[in-house]
Amino acid sequence: MSDSDRTDQRGAPPPGAATRSGEPGPGDRGPEVQDELERLRASIDNIDAAVVYMLAERFKCTQRVGRLKAEHQLPPADPARESRQIARLRELATEARLDPAFAEKLLNFVIAEVIRHHETIARES
Amino acid sequence: MSDSDRTDQRGAPPPGAATRSGEPGPGDRGPEVQDELERLRASIDNIDAAVVYMLAERFKCTQRVGRLKAEHQLPPADPARESRQIARLRELATEARLDPAFAEKLLNFVIAEVIRHHETIARES
Repeated sequence: MSDSDRTDQRGAPPPGAATRSGEPGPGDRGPEVQDELERLRASIDNIDAAVVYMLAERFKCTQRVGRLKAEHQLPPADPARESRQIARLRELATEARLDPAFAEKLLNFVIAEVIRHHETIARES
Repeated sequence: MSDSDRTDQRGAPPPGAATRSGEPGPGDRGPEVQDELERLRASIDNIDAAVVYMLAERFKCTQRVGRLKAEHQLPPADPARESRQIARLRELATEARLDPAFAEKLLNFVIAEVIRHHETIARES
């Protein structure tokens, strides 16, 4: 998915359509516009790579936690830790001008994968 | 959600239950186990903070792309860019020993938020 593309589909005039207000028509991208688009996309790609590697590291940590708990039969749920994680992440998101609800959804999304990993560990042990 | 906790719930004996093989019983966490758990959780928290700030930066880029395209009425869809992004991310995930399918799901998850942002831009412009 090219991130920015999806929504522009909505409400954008079909190629060749007349524009409301004498603005440049569809597909009219000067070289500097194209350059900025490429620059932004390169940053998006860099960030995506960083996030992928960050999450790989995070899964290494959570898998180790899973093994530790399995080995020592530690109590599974830790509601205090859980609420601290959510509250902290929502706070960080606000500082970063990110929607706190999005940050919480993201945490849940990642945790769903962690659970999948832990189930594999459980099956293998 | 405390990442590691969810799955340990599954199949873990109830507190106080006898263990199969003379292993330490439930809740038996030596100080060094507790220390390692804390260390791992601190790393998880650091990584989560990094990811939140990375994504905040990413959204800055995609919002700029959205505005650029709106201003210049650039063609919305870019299937070539899209397939490059997916292929690249899956490759990066494999290098990072992350499930490529997870990386692709994550991209879709983030893009859903990008779309939400772009819809806001579209409403405001």
